[in-house]
Parts: sequence; C-alpha cells; structure tokens
Amino acid sequence: MNSDENNHYHHEHDHNDEHVHEHHHHGGVNDYMKAVAEYKKTFASKQDVLDKTPDPAVKEMILHMEQIGCDTTFDRFDRQKPQCSFGLAGVCCRICYMGPCKITPKSPKGVCGADADLIVSRNLLRGLAGGVAAHGIHAREVILALKYAAEGKLNLPIEGKDKVLKTAEQFGIDTEGKTVEELASKVADILLEDISRTVPGEYKTIQACAPPERIKVWSNMDILPIGAYHEVFEALHRTGAATDGDWRNVMKQFLRCGLAFVWSGVVGSNIATDSLFGIGGRRTSKVNVGALKKGYVNIAVHGHLPVLVSEIIKQGHSEEFIKLAKEKGAKGIQFYGICCSGLSAMYRYNGVIPLSNAVGAELVLGTGALDLWVADVQDVFPSIMEVAACYKTVVVTTSDSSRLPGAEHYAYNHDHSNINETQAIARKIVTRAIESFENRKGMPVFIPPYEVDAEVGFSLEYVQNRFKGMKPILEALKSGKILGIVNLVGCNNPRVIYEKAVVDVADVLIKNNVLVLTNGCASFPLLKLGYCNVSALEKTGQGLRSFLEPDLPPVWHMGECIDNARASGVFSCVAAEAGEAIKDMPYALASPEWSNEKGIGAALAFRLLGVNSYHCVHAPVQGSDNVMNFILTGTKKSLGSTMTVDVDPIKLANRIIDNLKQKRKALNWD
Amino acid sequence: MNSDENNHYHHEHDHNDEHVHEHHHHGGVNDYMKAVAEYKKTFASKQDVLDKTPDPAVKEMILHMEQIGCDTTFDRFDRQKPQCSFGLAGVCCRICYMGPCKITPKSPKGVCGADADLIVSRNLLRGLAGGVAAHGIHAREVILALKYAAEGKLNLPIEGKDKVLKTAEQFGIDTEGKTVEELASKVADILLEDISRTVPGEYKTIQACAPPERIKVWSNMDILPIGAYHEVFEALHRTGAATDGDWRNVMKQFLRCGLAFVWSGVVGSNIATDSLFGIGGRRTSKVNVGALKKGYVNIAVHGHLPVLVSEIIKQGHSEEFIKLAKEKGAKGIQFYGICCSGLSAMYRYNGVIPLSNAVGAELVLGTGALDLWVADVQDVFPSIMEVAACYKTVVVTTSDSSRLPGAEHYAYNHDHSNINETQAIARKIVTRAIESFENRKGMPVFIPPYEVDAEVGFSLEYVQNRFKGMKPILEALKSGKILGIVNLVGCNNPRVIYEKAVVDVADVLIKNNVLVLTNGCASFPLLKLGYCNVSALEKTGQGLRSFLEPDLPPVWHMGECIDNARASGVFSCVAAEAGEAIKDMPYALASPEWSNEKGIGAALAFRLLGVNSYHCVHAPVQGSDNVMNFILTGTKKSLGSTMTVDVDPIKLANRIIDNLKQKRKALNWD
Repeated sequence: MNSDENNHYHHEHDHNDEHVHEHHHHGGVNDYMKAVAEYKKTFASKQDVLDKTPDPAVKEMILHMEQIGCDTTFDRFDRQKPQCSFGLAGVCCRICYMGPCKITPKSPKGVCGADADLIVSRNLLRGLAGGVAAHGIHAREVILALKYAAEGKLNLPIEGKDKVLKTAEQFGIDTEGKTVEELASKVADILLEDISRTVPGEYKTIQACAPPERIKVWSNMDILPIGAYHEVFEALHRTGAATDGDWRNVMKQFLRCGLAFVWSGVVGSNIATDSLFGIGGRRTSKVNVGALKKGYVNIAVHGHLPVLVSEIIKQGHSEEFIKLAKEKGAKGIQFYGICCSGLSAMYRYNGVIPLSNAVGAELVLGTGALDLWVADVQDVFPSIMEVAACYKTVVVTTSDSSRLPGAEHYAYNHDHSNINETQAIARKIVTRAIESFENRKGMPVFIPPYEVDAEVGFSLEYVQNRFKGMKPILEALKSGKILGIVNLVGCNNPRVIYEKAVVDVADVLIKNNVLVLTNGCASFPLLKLGYCNVSALEKTGQGLRSFLEPDLPPVWHMGECIDNARASGVFSCVAAEAGEAIKDMPYALASPEWSNEKGIGAALAFRLLGVNSYHCVHAPVQGSDNVMNFILTGTKKSLGSTMTVDVDPIKLANRIIDNLKQKRKALNWD
Repeated sequence: MNSDENNHYHHEHDHNDEHVHEHHHHGGVNDYMKAVAEYKKTFASKQDVLDKTPDPAVKEMILHMEQIGCDTTFDRFDRQKPQCSFGLAGVCCRICYMGPCKITPKSPKGVCGADADLIVSRNLLRGLAGGVAAHGIHAREVILALKYAAEGKLNLPIEGKDKVLKTAEQFGIDTEGKTVEELASKVADILLEDISRTVPGEYKTIQACAPPERIKVWSNMDILPIGAYHEVFEALHRTGAATDGDWRNVMKQFLRCGLAFVWSGVVGSNIATDSLFGIGGRRTSKVNVGALKKGYVNIAVHGHLPVLVSEIIKQGHSEEFIKLAKEKGAKGIQFYGICCSGLSAMYRYNGVIPLSNAVGAELVLGTGALDLWVADVQDVFPSIMEVAACYKTVVVTTSDSSRLPGAEHYAYNHDHSNINETQAIARKIVTRAIESFENRKGMPVFIPPYEVDAEVGFSLEYVQNRFKGMKPILEALKSGKILGIVNLVGCNNPRVIYEKAVVDVADVLIKNNVLVLTNGCASFPLLKLGYCNVSALEKTGQGLRSFLEPDLPPVWHMGECIDNARASGVFSCVAAEAGEAIKDMPYALASPEWSNEKGIGAALAFRLLGVNSYHCVHAPVQGSDNVMNFILTGTKKSLGSTMTVDVDPIKLANRIIDNLKQKRKALNWD
C-alpha cells in the first residue's frame, strides 16, 4: 500500500491534480546557468533607458539628475551588474543558518538535503507571503479605519453608503433599520475576521463574493484558505528549515496564499476603501511633471494608505490653510500623487495631480518643486531621501511601519491609539508644508514641460451606470468590435526599459481592438503618454474605436493597485452577462514590468480567477523545471489559466492577441 | 522643528531608547569581507567531525554511512563550501525582483537605495518571522487540539487538570463550578486570541504571565505585540520592497516579534501541551542508538507535534497491537524519539527512547533498525528519505504542512476536518509499522553499542515539588554552592563540530558549579554522554555537587524546545524568591550550535526577559556594524541583556562564567 492508494485520511486532491511531467536531470540540476546567462543579456542599462524610455520628461529628468549628481534607480541597477545567477535562478537558500546553500552540479543538495525544486518553490512561496502581507496590512489598515469611523473613534464620514449597503447584503447581514455606521461596523468585522481567523471555518468574503464555479474549483483543489494571517504564517512555517520537503505541497500553499491575497488583500481593501471614501467618479486630471505649479505650496502624497491622506487633502483644501499659504506668499496649496496614494486620491478629490510611479519618484523630487512629501508604506524607495535633502524638501513619514532616516514622523502608533488625532496630525503636516514653502524660497526648480489630460475614475459602478449594465460590452465583444479585455498593470523593473514594455504592450493591444483596463504603477506611462485621453482613439483599432467614440479612451484607468478588484469585477460581470466562466472569456492580465512581491500575488490572483497572465520579467524559477512548469502551465487544467513570460513586449502582446483569438474561437465568437 | 522635538503624535520612545553609536564607513560599507573570511576559516569539516565529535556512536555511524554510500549533513556541508560571503554577511537582498542586490564598495546601495544596515536588518527580521511562525504553528496546533478535546471533537482526555486550573486562574477566568473541559476551552480561546488578534488590545498571555517589571520595560520600548499572526505579517510587510527604510524601526519590529515568539510560540505551546497531555514526571530513560532493540517493531517519532504521537504511542502500547506484532514474529513494539516529538513523548509515556536530534536523524536511519518513521513538522531533513529507501523503512508524514516525496501520508487535513479520526489514523500507522516489520525481515542492521541511562522530565512543577519551593535553590545560589543557572539549548550547525560545542560548554559550566538546564536538540549530546546521569556529578564542581547529591544530575533535562518555557519559569520563580529582576540574576542562555530561524527567536526570547545569550555561530549581521552592535550590546540598557558570540566554545563558556560572577558581585553574593 502506498499513499496514493490511501486517501481516507486526507482530501482526495492532496496534490495538485495536474499530471505535470516531472523533469529529471543529472542529479536534479538543470542547466539554469545557461538560461540565466541568456536572461541577463536582456537586462536594460541606463543608456537604454535614456535612448528608449517613452516619456520625454523621464529622459530629461534622468539627465538633470546626472547634472546635479544624484543617483537614480538606473545608476544603481547598472552598478549591481552582474547580478547573482544563483539568486536569479532561485537556487540560493538562506532559510536556515547552516548555509547559505546553492544548487550546482557539484552541490545538488543543500545541507539539509533540499534539492532545486524545493529551494525554488520555498523562495517563491516566501515571496508571495510577503506580497500577501503587504496588501494584507493595507487592507487591515483601511478596514480598521472603517470600523473606527463607524464606531466614532475616527472622525471621518462614511462616504460610500451604497458600497456598505451592497456589501452588507452580499454578506447576508440583516440591513433592516440599521444605520450605515452599524452596517459598516459589521462589514468591517467580517473582513477582519477573514484576515485573522485561526479556528478553521468559512472564508466569508470568498463565500459571499466569488463566482460559485471558482469556489468549486478551489475546493476541489483543497486550496481554500483559513485566513490571510494564518496562511502567511503557515507559508513561513512550511518553508522553514526542514519542514515541507515536497515542492508540490509548497506550491499548494502558494495557491492557497494567492486566494488570501485576492480576497483579503485586494477585495477586502477595495470594499473598505470604497465604503469609507466612496467610489469616486470619472474625472479629467492633469498628469505628469509639467503640471507642477510654481509658486504654490506643493505637497506630494506617496504610498498606499488613504486614511490620513484624505484628511491631509481636506485640510490643505480648507480656506484656513489656503489663507495661511497665501499669507506666506504662495498662490495656494497644490497636491500631487505618487504611486497608489496619489491614484486613490486623484479620482476622489479634485485636483490631485498624478506625477509618477515608485521608480520615478526620485526624478519627481529632482525637479526641486516639492515643498513636502508625505510617505506612508510600500514602494517608497529609501533613495528619495538623498534627493529630498538636495532640495530641502521635507519628507514626512506617517506610518509606524515605515520610517526613513532624516524624515519627520507624524504618524499613527503601532496600536492606533492616536487614531482620534487624525485631524491634528493632518494639520501638522500641512503646516509643515507651508513652513517648508517659506524655507525653500529661491530654491532652483527644473520642470520639463510635459503635461497632458487624462480620464480617470473608471470604477465597476461607473461602467455599469454608463452602459446600463454589461450587455453593450458583451455585445461588442461577441461582435468582435472588442477583441478582448486586458488588465494591464504591475510595477516597474529596471531589468526592462522603464515604462517601455507597458507602452509597447498597450500599443499592440489597442491597435488590435483590445479594451485595456489599468491601475497602479503601470498606469503612469499610460496616463502620461495620453492613452487615457480620447486622442488615443487615433491609435485604436477601428472596432474598438467605434465602440468607444466619442468620449471614452481605449485605456480605462481604474485607480490604485488594489483596484484590481475593479478590473476583476468587470471581468466577472461581463462573464456573468455572457453566462460563461471567466476562464473561457477573452481576458488577460498583463504585468509586463512587475518587480515586487505584490506582483507575484497580482498575477497569481488573476490566474486563480481563470485569467492568463503575461509578463516580460522572469520569476526566480529558472533553477527548477518542475516549479517553472508548474507556474507557467501546470494549472491549465485545474484553474484554466497559464502564465507566459517573454522579455520582448511586442512578442508578449502578440501572444496575448493570439490567445484572445483562441478563446473567441472556442466561444464561437469569430 | 524636527521629528525629535515632536513626539506629540507618537510614543515617546519611538526609536529604541539606546544611544547606539552609529558606525559610518566609506559609503556605508564596512569590511565584512575580511570578517567573513576569518569566520569561514573556522567552519568545521566532515573530517573534523570524525576526529572530534564527542559521541562515539556518531563517529561509527558516519563511517557506516560512507560504507553504504549515503551522504550525510557533513558531506553536503563540505560540498557547499565555499559558502557565499554576501549571504553570510547578510548583505544579499532578494526581497524584490529588481535584484538580487548585494552591498559592496562598488555597489553600496541596492537598486531601491537600501544600504547594508537596512538589508541586514530586514533579512534578520524575516528570519525571526519564520521562527515565530514555526513555533506559532506548533502552538496553534496544540491549542486547537486542546480546544477540540475540550469540546469533544477530538477524543483525547485532558490530562493536565492542574495546569488548566492554574492557567485559568492566571487568566482571571471564574473557575467556580466549571468543568475542566469548560476551563480548557476558555484557556484555549484566550491563547488563540493572542495568536490571531488584529484589532489592537491587550496581549492576554503577557498581561497574565509576564513579570510586571518586564511589561513595563517592553511598554516603555513600545514593543508590545498586537498578536502573533499580526506581528509576523507586519514583519513581512515592513521588510517588503521599499517599505521601512530605517533599520532601527526594523529592529524595533524584531523585538516585537520576539515577544510574540515568547508568549504565543513558547508559552502558549507549553500551556496547551501541559494542559492536554499533563506535565509528565521525572523518569529514567535509556538513550542513544545502542538502545535500539532488534526483533521489535521499531517506530521512531520525529518532529514537534504531540497530538497524533500521543495516540500512536497509546495504540502501539495496546494489547491488541502488541499481540498482532507478536503474531508477526516480533518481540513487541518499541518507540524511539527523534528531535522534540521524542523528547515531549519520552517524559510523558513510558519507554520512548530518545535517539538523536535532527542532524543525526539520518545516522539513526542508517542503522537499518527502524521499521517505521513518523515525521511531522520542522527539523525533518528531506535527506532522510534516501536513507530510509536503503532500508525499506516506511516514512509516514502526518501533517498537512510537511510532506516528503516517497513517504506515505496519513495526516490531518489543512482544516483539521478529520481531527475526529485521530484514533483511526494512529491505528493505520501502527498497522503499517507491523507490516513494515514483516516486509523488512532479514534487513541488515548495524547498531553501535552505546547506550546510557538519563534522568529526564524536570518540569518547573517537579523542581518546585522537589524543593518545596525555590528557596533552597536561591540559598544555594546566594551561598555560592551554585554559581549561576544556564539554559543550554539550541539546534546543531555543521559550521561547528557536531555536538562538541554543547558538550564543551557544559563541561566548563558544571565544573564551575553552574546548574545547567537543557531541552531540544542540544540536549541530545548531554543525554547521550551521561550529563543527565548522576554519574556526571564526578565532573561537577564541589559546591554544585554537594547541592545535587545524591540523586540529581548537574544537567536537568526539561523536555522539547518549547519547554524553554520551563527554564524561564525556573528563572522567573527563583528571581521572584530573591526579590530581584531576572536581568540582575546570575543566569544565562547558551545556544552554541544554533542553526535555524527558531534559534534566532529562542536567543532573543531570553534577552527580552533580561538574560544574556551566548553562541558559537554568527547571525548574518557582519555586513552591518549598526545591526551587529544592536543585537550584541544595543539592548543592554533597555532590556538589561546582551548577546555574545565566540566561535570557541571553551572561551564562550568562560565568558559566561565571568558574566555570572559579575552579576553575583553586583548582588553582593560573592
């Protein structure tokens, strides 16, 4: 009797139900050195960025940074060359302190006996665990704020009454006679319960919000999570020294963590944010550094957390502070957005101008135009401090999770015991901005003259209202006016030419009548280069153009990175309208330039929903054929989705087009 | 105005209140290459182990493994040489996928701008997070079992009635008229709440069980945790790409995670284990491979989780199965313990013979004497499968967290939905052991003839009963009969000669009248080499000997690694008897050969209590003088404790002796 014959004591699908062909090489070591060497040859250089990055403002700012003697991401990336091949291949293990170990033909096993498959899978799962934690802390922060606002501990109004009501109904809460605060508090408790559950039970957000077809798939695969905290904890445990010895079981936890990423990290964040701050509306926004206003008190908000930012902007827009700014010789107070805090604010509050994603933040600071820079969590490169110091820009950190040496710290405590001081903290920060404006008078400013208008604020609700349901989109899809829908997202990675992969992919997609959704870091080049402007209809294929004219751009900007929930909402609702499973629809997720741990989660999230993912950056899996094949094609049968990597963005985009056409064919939509 | 002048919005002790001198080097890069090169020269080789490891059975088994052509840890360690210097120094960053980055004079910053301090601190915190997760999952597993047992879902009796009652009283639960099951359920709920809390509130185990002096210290340092899950999640978040930019803030989270490690991982596990399975009693046990019994159905239990093991042993000791074994030609059924499962079982159930720690597990399998090997979680090297295959030893995995390719899997599900099948799973496993015995008849067996008796089962309660309180120990300490008390623990690391550092330290300590407590992996050489036998009094200094005679050995074996709670209980109770803070008492923690992520936590745990820690293995911090100094001496003022590393165990032990004498002098006990 062996374990395969015996499944009485465990789930039937103990292992992922794929018949992956396991590859066996000499001593279990594949020829990753060759693959990695080829891969490294494709890495971009700073010169490549100067030659080919699509935004002229970026080029000018990189040259300007050279002149002022400030390093950028691109300098540091070049200086890190040649990167470690063991790390790139995923075969470096630093999980215990008997090592470090690395898998080579000479040393095919780590000290504990772990082989390449196990080491690569463990590293990948730990990376994803970091991504779940990042989005998960973001989620908790906003959910906690919703709860505190509902309970009166945080003095913020609950702006998203419709979202609260809708979610309460989805969760089966009796809404009869309840105030929005009472409902918001209950919704927050459920979302927090899904994060923190330890005694096994239903993951309520999944049961309430996921398509039944998917719940069945995940249940059959035995990958339903217990809670977000727990699965991350278990991921660390399982990958710890000499614990899980089976790469397949490690990858099972990888899928399970992916569901926690989706349903607490992304959907939970999204529900809480829309509930507390409202859904926002479609707006037209100025974009790019050319929109920086000289003579104003200029404040940038950078990071991911919307709570304090909302109050800072409210205070900065108050007559009191505008008057104070004017007394100090400013024309007014202007807010700018970096990374997701900016995107989340831009479609909710008037006149928050998005400037750059995380990689470009130091370039924006290099203009010398910013008086104060509010940094919360995630995607805040420590390098910004050096540039800020050059221009006496005051950097303020606002989260207990993230400090920067040299920054001022006006923040919530670790235990949020000062959440009731939100207004005072915000006022302090705006006051410091005005003081900084005074202090910085006469500071040289260099602003490349590039700015553009962009249409932003495409929520699921906006789309549904605009089209009175999803039928018109489905009809356009069926008729071929729209070839497919692609969510084009992801951070940036200096391995590929900054912002070029995103733009190249977008060009091919819209030319081929693919409707593009976007959010987060990848959305910045699309914003800055006019893809979110109706003028981009000129570059758009005829079918899609006819559907969008006269007032819709070919790229719909949905917001910050957790607004992936909005894209998946569109995917889900159009599929439901068609009566098809998401996995059978002509959809794709592309994150061509992804670079951080959340990026692993975001791509996996869509694959878990049944949507193929496409990338120009390799995950560190080239050292294990088994793990690489598992993440590329190993879940085709179970999840109905695959992952594709091609370092050439044009080729990548063409592979998306081919796949969308295949899907259409299977649906008889051609 | 700068942040130091402004602490209205955050705790006063925002940064650790030490005045650590920050070291600044050329470009922030110290000369770690030289330090690491020196360190690497001290790494042991397999030949060193053969020449100098203290247990002759280990030497014979290593030679035997050579003869049968099986690799061991020592072969693989040699083959991994030379180890990566960047990894050893802690300056390799693989946290995002713009890298890998490494800090060198040529590249003093990572792509994001992170310097050596930040990279080293982040890697260290992530390591500790892994350790918290490992002990934390262990804790949850046993607490959940206690809860299920109390609620009747798991058919196990609650053996530790006194422990349940005592803990319920500590937690302020009204015990009047409650059954032990009702109380156990409430205790379990509180322990689970401490693990899973997400809305900030009191960490109940800390408030109920920690010395008030310490709670004040931790509160002043702003390091009280919210919950174990949360702090691990936050550790991953904070160390994620471009989140926390300040190594001091990262190290603050390091301390916070350390408290979660102590109070949920160690104390929570300990409470639940003693509650469910009882405290056990002092026993005399056979030890080492010479105790392997030919002709018996030989079953080893290996790992950390006691729940299923308790039932397997119960079934294996039943008349029914003994009869079945005898029908198949066996003399009976014998259990052996590897690593902590074995230690936990050995002092609770008669006749479970401890054989080896994790590193030696493959040597034990190499005897060919085992019919079945039960592996649950942690410290189960995947390498055991190759040795097991040589001897047709059936390996059974029993946890959803840990599988081994080639093993049979009779396990609890991820959601424990089959917890009520515990007896059936245990019976299946014992049945398989008997089948394996039959199948393996005639298998060659090689058993080095070394065995010894050891005194085990020294719980806090045993010590208190034995001495009718702590006064006699305190008197002996004050009078100088006992110089101090040292908890000598930790895993093994092939960087140092296997088991020699532990034994060398023990020799010096007992000779100098230091009472030694031990548990876990480090306790195996002490068990095997007679230190837990009264005959070791011959090697013991006169004062200590006179205190221990006639029936107490100089090394008190307290159990498995979570029984560090027992050692800290002794520390705490003797200090309370003296009316002194733990930090002022002549105590120390030594984990000379530590190697895994839990080892970071175990040492930190004692430092958080105010006890200095001593080691022969460096943490990967040599690349950052700031982080290294922080963990070595940076908490002397705040916590009252330091960390000492010396690769020479004799020198290390002498440093312990010196420090104990200093502490005695400060107490006027000399």
